[in-house]
Amino acid sequence: MSKIAAAAVATNVRETEIREFHLPEIGEDEGILKVEIVGVCGTDVDYYRKEQSPRILGHHIVGDIERIGEKAAKKWGLAPGDRVVMEEYIPCGQCKHCRTGVLRACEETDPRKNGIRYGATPLDIAPSLYGGFAQYVYLHPNAVLHKISKDVDLVEASFALPLSNGFEWMCIEGNVGPNQVVLIQGPGQQGLACALAAKYAGAEVIVTGRNTSMKRLELAKKLGVDHIINISEENLVERVKEITKGSMVDVVLDVTSGGAGPVTSSLDVANKGATIILGAYKYQKIAEWDIDEVIKKTLTIKGVRGHSYHSVEMAIECISSGKFPIKIMNSHNYPLAKTDAALKTAGGEGEPFPLLVTVSPWL
Amino acid sequence: MSKIAAAAVATNVRETEIREFHLPEIGEDEGILKVEIVGVCGTDVDYYRKEQSPRILGHHIVGDIERIGEKAAKKWGLAPGDRVVMEEYIPCGQCKHCRTGVLRACEETDPRKNGIRYGATPLDIAPSLYGGFAQYVYLHPNAVLHKISKDVDLVEASFALPLSNGFEWMCIEGNVGPNQVVLIQGPGQQGLACALAAKYAGAEVIVTGRNTSMKRLELAKKLGVDHIINISEENLVERVKEITKGSMVDVVLDVTSGGAGPVTSSLDVANKGATIILGAYKYQKIAEWDIDEVIKKTLTIKGVRGHSYHSVEMAIECISSGKFPIKIMNSHNYPLAKTDAALKTAGGEGEPFPLLVTVSPWL
Amino acid sequence: MSKIAAAAVATNVRETEIREFHLPEIGEDEGILKVEIVGVCGTDVDYYRKEQSPRILGHHIVGDIERIGEKAAKKWGLAPGDRVVMEEYIPCGQCKHCRTGVLRACEETDPRKNGIRYGATPLDIAPSLYGGFAQYVYLHPNAVLHKISKDVDLVEASFALPLSNGFEWMCIEGNVGPNQVVLIQGPGQQGLACALAAKYAGAEVIVTGRNTSMKRLELAKKLGVDHIINISEENLVERVKEITKGSMVDVVLDVTSGGAGPVTSSLDVANKGATIILGAYKYQKIAEWDIDEVIKKTLTIKGVRGHSYHSVEMAIECISSGKFPIKIMNSHNYPLAKTDAALKTAGGEGEPFPLLVTVSPWL
Amino acid sequence: MSKIAAAAVATNVRETEIREFHLPEIGEDEGILKVEIVGVCGTDVDYYRKEQSPRILGHHIVGDIERIGEKAAKKWGLAPGDRVVMEEYIPCGQCKHCRTGVLRACEETDPRKNGIRYGATPLDIAPSLYGGFAQYVYLHPNAVLHKISKDVDLVEASFALPLSNGFEWMCIEGNVGPNQVVLIQGPGQQGLACALAAKYAGAEVIVTGRNTSMKRLELAKKLGVDHIINISEENLVERVKEITKGSMVDVVLDVTSGGAGPVTSSLDVANKGATIILGAYKYQKIAEWDIDEVIKKTLTIKGVRGHSYHSVEMAIECISSGKFPIKIMNSHNYPLAKTDAALKTAGGEGEPFPLLVTVSPWL
Repeated sequence: MSKIAAAAVATNVRETEIREFHLPEIGEDEGILKVEIVGVCGTDVDYYRKEQSPRILGHHIVGDIERIGEKAAKKWGLAPGDRVVMEEYIPCGQCKHCRTGVLRACEETDPRKNGIRYGATPLDIAPSLYGGFAQYVYLHPNAVLHKISKDVDLVEASFALPLSNGFEWMCIEGNVGPNQVVLIQGPGQQGLACALAAKYAGAEVIVTGRNTSMKRLELAKKLGVDHIINISEENLVERVKEITKGSMVDVVLDVTSGGAGPVTSSLDVANKGATIILGAYKYQKIAEWDIDEVIKKTLTIKGVRGHSYHSVEMAIECISSGKFPIKIMNSHNYPLAKTDAALKTAGGEGEPFPLLVTVSPWL
Repeated sequence: MSKIAAAAVATNVRETEIREFHLPEIGEDEGILKVEIVGVCGTDVDYYRKEQSPRILGHHIVGDIERIGEKAAKKWGLAPGDRVVMEEYIPCGQCKHCRTGVLRACEETDPRKNGIRYGATPLDIAPSLYGGFAQYVYLHPNAVLHKISKDVDLVEASFALPLSNGFEWMCIEGNVGPNQVVLIQGPGQQGLACALAAKYAGAEVIVTGRNTSMKRLELAKKLGVDHIINISEENLVERVKEITKGSMVDVVLDVTSGGAGPVTSSLDVANKGATIILGAYKYQKIAEWDIDEVIKKTLTIKGVRGHSYHSVEMAIECISSGKFPIKIMNSHNYPLAKTDAALKTAGGEGEPFPLLVTVSPWL
Repeated sequence: MSKIAAAAVATNVRETEIREFHLPEIGEDEGILKVEIVGVCGTDVDYYRKEQSPRILGHHIVGDIERIGEKAAKKWGLAPGDRVVMEEYIPCGQCKHCRTGVLRACEETDPRKNGIRYGATPLDIAPSLYGGFAQYVYLHPNAVLHKISKDVDLVEASFALPLSNGFEWMCIEGNVGPNQVVLIQGPGQQGLACALAAKYAGAEVIVTGRNTSMKRLELAKKLGVDHIINISEENLVERVKEITKGSMVDVVLDVTSGGAGPVTSSLDVANKGATIILGAYKYQKIAEWDIDEVIKKTLTIKGVRGHSYHSVEMAIECISSGKFPIKIMNSHNYPLAKTDAALKTAGGEGEPFPLLVTVSPWL
Repeated sequence: MSKIAAAAVATNVRETEIREFHLPEIGEDEGILKVEIVGVCGTDVDYYRKEQSPRILGHHIVGDIERIGEKAAKKWGLAPGDRVVMEEYIPCGQCKHCRTGVLRACEETDPRKNGIRYGATPLDIAPSLYGGFAQYVYLHPNAVLHKISKDVDLVEASFALPLSNGFEWMCIEGNVGPNQVVLIQGPGQQGLACALAAKYAGAEVIVTGRNTSMKRLELAKKLGVDHIINISEENLVERVKEITKGSMVDVVLDVTSGGAGPVTSSLDVANKGATIILGAYKYQKIAEWDIDEVIKKTLTIKGVRGHSYHSVEMAIECISSGKFPIKIMNSHNYPLAKTDAALKTAGGEGEPFPLLVTVSPWL
């Protein structure tokens, strides 16, 4: 049995280095995961660029159970060798939020309140192995694991967490289903995940982007999206009117980075009674926000964050169905030694045209 | 049988005059209502102040069936002498909106699209008697009527439409119920209606106002509201923190007139996952709208307008239960000849301290 | 313009004869539809076998607007030549049920209460042309029409009403969506419609049948259903356990004709918290109904009937998407002159292996 | 500090004896509760009558924190001296059910699967103090506690769990609210709890019983229920028709003990679209169950069990509001030494007219 785990530690602003860690002894309600693949999230890039204490990043983790305590095996229903998708949250299981199934609101797993979670926990919290850019990850007694078949392609499995946000935001928050038109603003990893979730649930899906994201828009078409709009060249409202024969859009999502424009244009493409989902921080206030339009059209606006246990199950089921060629989103794959390059590429500062960037710790 | 109906016609900006109308002959699917009382709505005041073709205003109408065609009697389940609350809408019954139960979205009853509705239809549309400031009202084949017991106090019955908005916005849109704290900003007729609906559905209710609305806030307490906050004197956020022991508010409503301040402060008093209901046009854009806070707190914001058939039934049931002393809201009652004074008082330009202002056409 | 409509009149038990009717003059809120195709419903077969006054059966009607009054054109948003799917209901638009969007509960369109509806209205109610087994159908002012593109195959369009029941029962009543397993008992027209709706909404679908329905089960596979079970040969509970890896079924539907067995076996395949949808009358009481099992598994059981305006729109959108090869369900097509044969075949007394049986009135 | 806890141990069929236990040392995530009062539940009576290994019964527990570990204090937000209502469940916090907020489905707390819960755990599971008929209770790391003000009457606080079932079944499962009529069959502790929850949420409530339960029916009236029906003397359907003016009942609950009659009569009093809630095992199958009536009336039938975290919060808020004189339900109160008498009375084999029977361990 391997005793040493190599891991990429984020040591400083825009810096990672490979270090080795001894695998910890585990108790009866803990375990060790052998990481098979890990996807790079926008949050990883944010941490990578920030001054902070050293830690192992990476939380879109897929791996196989390496060791597992007896009680852990029972409570998780897992055995050595089983493949799992991990959630990033390590919820306490006993607070008001956990008791009502909103694990992501648990303060014990909120880094802003000194909580711990995968991909965001300092090395000095034992046993350090809390990040996916590593050969092994420590399975905390409160880890949230979802079994997935080994028949599923590893790259596609690594898309489970972004896709679970997609199901959470589209299906659970947005009630997306048959006979609805959904417009996704922002064709990145998260936008495409939402597009797939909406397609899976029976909706007609439009994805918008700019000249700079034409490759992503074309990929969206290959994934099965119904319409794409390049708003650098086309008039958004006119195109939506044309596509929907004037009935406009039932659900609008904003997951663009950058300015407040898409939030405002959401009001223009929404039909009476539509829902607008806000999934991306703007880091600025919106000037000239037309509340009266919200009333006139009786709109619903929802701020959304993260996923639930149920939406991760939805994502795994969708991936396992093989309905979408998710694999074609994998723009770049790196070995562990090149985690630094992976983070730079995912952040737009490395190789061109990143989308789903992954790290394989055993390459 | 009376052949002549006296009515207050809004002839010009801030002007009404009493005129007489012959009652029309009615067909088998129409009727005539003898108006017993009519409440003054903010919309009536808006019309009263606008340049427009002459019409009879007033649409919070309670009255008794005077004449009714055979088919109308059957379809409405009504007979001469029955007392009813009328909705203002005259929906076509056949469009997509009517077919799905959203009568208020029907274009045939939208004045902005030349549709007709009670209290907003020009005299030149036959038979002219489309307003409640009159002794009789014409019952159009598409009128929406709700039977109410004659045991119910007339003033309280005249509150059915504002209260139905209350049930629509609080219970149907806001899912208000037991173990929720609701904060109502704006202690006018509509705010208090929402407060009563929320109380009826089991919520704890806070109403806010200013120095100028202290009489209304005190009335709110008499109506059964749990807490009042005078934001001219008290710090809103601190007081809410104190009342809720730090857990803040589940549902916030804005029905204030005037500026955008209450929309912004809604974000401050809302707890994680709260719903903010917007029920009053601001006629101005919001500067500095903090979308990131909407995401951080995973808030839902809903623009709302009007009522449904179901919420009017809820209001009538609530009024009939006698649970609240609604009658004490009736600040002023006028005879038909003083409709002009009623409109001025309701609009804040007549007698002081208006709240529920009513006109009794047979006084 | 044609002045005469040939129609198959159900004159007696198991008897129809072709008669000719003059097209009526139409008023401003009426119209005439040229019938292009009509599907045979189980209800048609029931009427065909009953003693009753003469009438034109057939209500799964697709046709083109032949004549339309000015007001009708406006309210329906239709012009001559437009193709439409008709609902069978002719709801009054003004009763409590219509006002809340539950058109199918309107008494004016309930044949058991002397209401009228398409395919079930006696000849002596003018202008007689209320059935789809005819070249023309009278469009009543209260008819409920849904526009459909002429690009859609006519056979597939004729499946809109059964499919709308599918969306109503699966998606609106059963909340079927991604990551759910649905089991359909009864592979007839209605069962397969439910299977397609559930697939469209993202569910995994199992259809069960017997040796006698193997052709239908094989067709179900071709339509895209995930699993079929022949309960004459296989153990239902064991197979479901195997397919679902022990987690059993989230939503069970019974649309079998015949005995109560499938209602009882629904309890066995349902998982904790599952929903059981009952869509087929049994014409007998259930002996030995295990209420305690309903409590132990916290099940929800729903009786369902018919469709809503919204579910018809869902069905049309699904058909128009071309996602499923619905056309392969069209087991038999007859000209108007052979309506009698169509009814016999649909009822299992004519040509073998009926499924979707259609009549084309102009052949 | 007290080192010894007296407790009533159920040692044999219909037998309890008082024994003394040393309080255990507690770890950092555990605690000790000083029991102030405990209500007797029907489940306690069932256990009392069964052959089983010795255990301390009683799970409607209210008490004050006696000792609490540091981590427990933080996770529960509690300090020594705080008063709490306990749930009977001891959920693992990490399984699929816990992760989605359905604590009561967790197998770790299911006695039928060798799980542990308060009031149903054998003495040989350390530290034995798992029952409320005792001076102290052990607070397991997974205990579910709800803070309640010491201003609340202890008897009323002891009603929190039955009342939480009421909120779960009426408000969460049954969507009970304003303008609905609810009929409760069975005026025992659970039926009255449901009646109060439904009243609190704004419904009109009818409670039915028999000659033998007239005292309970009269009490129901004093608690604020709108109507009572003695079905030994009155015709149920006729009375409901009269009370509801023919519109019948929206939600029907069965919590009667004994035969299947009330389940069947539920179908007769339900209106179109009604919900029937089944909350009491019948220990027999229903003969002659009319499934066709379920379809014809498009009914929803739900089997229900237990409460959620949220419904306990609703119950505590309702009790704290002081809206209902819950205290008048307290038919009998016993000291710990008379726990045996308490169990006999609650089971109908002791003093007459039991309703809410309580034990005060320090009397």
